[in-house]
Amino acid sequence: MCQPPPVVVLSELPGRPCAIAAALEVVGDRWALLAVREVHLGAHRFSDVLAGTGAPRDRLAARLKDLVAAGVLERRPYQDAPPRSDYHLTEAGRELVPVLAALEAWGRRWAVDSEESATP
Amino acid sequence: MCQPPPVVVLSELPGRPCAIAAALEVVGDRWALLAVREVHLGAHRFSDVLAGTGAPRDRLAARLKDLVAAGVLERRPYQDAPPRSDYHLTEAGRELVPVLAALEAWGRRWAVDSEESATP
Repeated sequence: MCQPPPVVVLSELPGRPCAIAAALEVVGDRWALLAVREVHLGAHRFSDVLAGTGAPRDRLAARLKDLVAAGVLERRPYQDAPPRSDYHLTEAGRELVPVLAALEAWGRRWAVDSEESATP
Repeated sequence: MCQPPPVVVLSELPGRPCAIAAALEVVGDRWALLAVREVHLGAHRFSDVLAGTGAPRDRLAARLKDLVAAGVLERRPYQDAPPRSDYHLTEAGRELVPVLAALEAWGRRWAVDSEESATP
């Protein structure tokens, strides 16, 4: 797979021209990051990503299409008749794992009910 | 300031019960994270956060209110007549800086026009 084209022109961003804002243009929707989490965890088919994220079906379909266009996910055929493909992380997608890890560390400390997270 | 109450019950999340999803319940909107970036960079007043994020005014006001309620930002009075307050990061807010750093590293590599980011 060839590297995708750059997707964000800093000078076209509405606020401060910054790589954080550029990243959020691509993955600034919660369903986008949760879809990347699911694929990273081994959910490759649409129905599995749908179940794992809990996203509305139409919003997830739109986000997956955007993530493929941005080069974060790629579709791979797994069946010929009828033709079917599933989702895999590209190199750009795999490099989002540190973002997910930072969110997980923060979420565990600050966003989760402490009694709940104490139970195994 | 006392520590805010836990904000997300994992079992009430729509998909996989996970601290990443819990974190994104709090900061899963791009304007929320960009507002945290601005306050971290020293923009404490609404008008400065508005300019730095480029967010629509009403959406930014809603996100700031949510971030205060979630204990990520706190308001501090800086003027009595008329009464005015500005925004500061709480401990929870400061601990979002690694999330911003991970997004910045990813954005610089994958989301920014490479010619643009090569210029100082």
